[in-house]
Amino acid sequence: MALKGNGIVAQSGGPTAVINASACGVVQECLRHREIEGIYGAINGVLGILNEEIFDFGDESSSDIEGLKYTPAAALGSCRYKLKSLEDSEEDYARIMEVFRAHTIRYFFYIGGNDSMDTADKIGLLSKRLGYDMKVMGVPKTVDNDLGFTDHCPGYGSVVKFNAAAVMEAGRDTDAIYTTDTCTIIEAMGRNSGWIAGGTALARREEGDAPHLIYMPETVFSTEQFVKDCKDVLSRYGRIFIVAGEGLKDKDGNLLMAHAGAFARDAFGHIQLGGVADILRAIVEKEVRVKARHNKLGTCQREAMHFASKTDRDEAYLCGQMAVKHAVEEDVTGKMVSLVRESDDPYRCSTGLVDLAEVANAEKPVPREWINEAGNFVTEEFIRYVAPLIQGEVDVPMENGLPKYIRLKRKPIPKKCPAS
Amino acid sequence: MALKGNGIVAQSGGPTAVINASACGVVQECLRHREIEGIYGAINGVLGILNEEIFDFGDESSSDIEGLKYTPAAALGSCRYKLKSLEDSEEDYARIMEVFRAHTIRYFFYIGGNDSMDTADKIGLLSKRLGYDMKVMGVPKTVDNDLGFTDHCPGYGSVVKFNAAAVMEAGRDTDAIYTTDTCTIIEAMGRNSGWIAGGTALARREEGDAPHLIYMPETVFSTEQFVKDCKDVLSRYGRIFIVAGEGLKDKDGNLLMAHAGAFARDAFGHIQLGGVADILRAIVEKEVRVKARHNKLGTCQREAMHFASKTDRDEAYLCGQMAVKHAVEEDVTGKMVSLVRESDDPYRCSTGLVDLAEVANAEKPVPREWINEAGNFVTEEFIRYVAPLIQGEVDVPMENGLPKYIRLKRKPIPKKCPAS
Repeated sequence: MALKGNGIVAQSGGPTAVINASACGVVQECLRHREIEGIYGAINGVLGILNEEIFDFGDESSSDIEGLKYTPAAALGSCRYKLKSLEDSEEDYARIMEVFRAHTIRYFFYIGGNDSMDTADKIGLLSKRLGYDMKVMGVPKTVDNDLGFTDHCPGYGSVVKFNAAAVMEAGRDTDAIYTTDTCTIIEAMGRNSGWIAGGTALARREEGDAPHLIYMPETVFSTEQFVKDCKDVLSRYGRIFIVAGEGLKDKDGNLLMAHAGAFARDAFGHIQLGGVADILRAIVEKEVRVKARHNKLGTCQREAMHFASKTDRDEAYLCGQMAVKHAVEEDVTGKMVSLVRESDDPYRCSTGLVDLAEVANAEKPVPREWINEAGNFVTEEFIRYVAPLIQGEVDVPMENGLPKYIRLKRKPIPKKCPAS
Repeated sequence: MALKGNGIVAQSGGPTAVINASACGVVQECLRHREIEGIYGAINGVLGILNEEIFDFGDESSSDIEGLKYTPAAALGSCRYKLKSLEDSEEDYARIMEVFRAHTIRYFFYIGGNDSMDTADKIGLLSKRLGYDMKVMGVPKTVDNDLGFTDHCPGYGSVVKFNAAAVMEAGRDTDAIYTTDTCTIIEAMGRNSGWIAGGTALARREEGDAPHLIYMPETVFSTEQFVKDCKDVLSRYGRIFIVAGEGLKDKDGNLLMAHAGAFARDAFGHIQLGGVADILRAIVEKEVRVKARHNKLGTCQREAMHFASKTDRDEAYLCGQMAVKHAVEEDVTGKMVSLVRESDDPYRCSTGLVDLAEVANAEKPVPREWINEAGNFVTEEFIRYVAPLIQGEVDVPMENGLPKYIRLKRKPIPKKCPAS
């Protein structure tokens, strides 16, 4: 007999285009199980639990819940509040258990990255220690794609699809106007890994297409080599198109951005200007002596549901759904749902389970052998890996020429144990 | 009887998502007129004429020509080569006439902005002076929307549609994660006018939606007022979403970017870092004391055919087509095709004609009364003006999850008068 009680879902960390699809998978699957009596959402992630700011999906319309499938960014609200060990964040963990007990929460579904899996794991351990019977399940989420023990992460396929299209399109711009505007640099997200930057290689279909050069945090960035690479490309194609991961580091492990920090302070105080692309632009103009532009898609890239990957969206939903099925039907707890690739071509992917504690402590960089020797592009293995993840488009309803995304009402339910 | 001979089309200046749709309109309409014997393209704008780098659309497949309707960025190639007065650029103008004569060019269609209309006008004057019978027609193009004597410009609707979607989506990101990442700033193109920045107001559908503040070059930028605006918005919504035109100026007319130049120099020499959004981000962090991010869509915004406006694309085609019809059927020369709005709701737009010389010397800023008194948002008049221009989406063929844009072969025809 499955455990009876309420379920709660929370979203954590940087939002993605498909994080709501995972929430939708959780909620719609919960609604199919009589054991889960009520399904709640935490407003702004774990902060919503700590502050007892919780809403009931029973108060949301089924069309709004369905709309989570095509609405980007954490509709429940997210946060970057980080819990530490059970000892160091004792009060917070105790408070979470207090709120869970007060609302008879027996199922906790946490959608997030490493840190969130760590938090979920500790909540699971604590509930066991306290003899409070509950199931704790993790649902992977990160555009960075750096979670271990899963083939890839929901959110990644969509950010690559949009970035690759942007590279393709801005590449056409450079192709057209290269006689004056010769170099373009796009900065891709990924502070510690080059998964997103590398994925933009998909934009290249023919010799000469953008991107010409891709730099990732997994290899050491050398200004000398960079200038040489640029000059080579320039002599071959008459133009240069570069994608740079935001977390590029030099041989001493210093972020390229930090270099800028040393001199880019304003008249008042200590304000740092210039991200990686801006710095590379400056290097190109100074050392290669051609006009360069930089584009920084920033948070637009991770929320671009108007051009998201259907494959990614469907897998995000599936991960949410499977978390519920495993917990309710198989009594599973303390696990994250993972994506398991069955084959590349035709692409087939199923789900698995992995211990929360394992995921919490692992970070998965791009394998060195998936980056070419020169460290300025990806190999065929990378392309084979990433290509299936951007397939298909998501149907987004339109209104007056723009997407018609939903908003949850998020009406807070009465508090049962206000914080003292 | 219409003039018999060859036609040539050239693209100039910064490319747009729909500049090829205009070229397609020119080419396909030319093919319908027997008087136009061959239809050529200049490779890289006026440079292609000067260097006699010309290709024949007869060598292109009809499916590639049709593909110009959904392929962004100048497929013929563009340039920023600026011709001056007939006296100051005498040699260039003489060379253009030499090439035109050699290839029996009797129709010249120039797709571009102010400067291009000026060049086209002068070519028309010179041909008359030399007694060489030819028709010169201008086709408007600019994402900046700052051409006078036309209701709006092809290219503008698409850049607004994409930027508004990006603001809507990045706005959702800020809504979700505002408890730490409280402020987001997006930099929109438009060095001298706020048409693009202002158009992003369309993303706001409900109270509290992004964007909260829009700054345009038409009003004086005051750091004091800006900080006050940010604090007001923060106290109302708990977050701040700002769109800034790249050409913001202070009360002395200095670009905000130039301020940065004063302190953002690197260790080697004289490299300027930081665009407007980056500077505003720094001001927010320093003066409002919340974490701020900035996004700079750069050239991606003007080529975003994957989310372009069908209205814009169709009008771009129409302008190209009408340039040909007027020249061939009505013997018109020395004119640019303009867009004439018949009504807002339902939106109806036809074309007109305007003297090239008139367009060449006019720049159209956003009317002051379309910007609110505080200079931090647009008025309803602006919304009414821009809303119809982003309607509809362009069908782009997809291949492996990304747009399948065409490439013209652009095989140069033999030179008849190589430059000495």
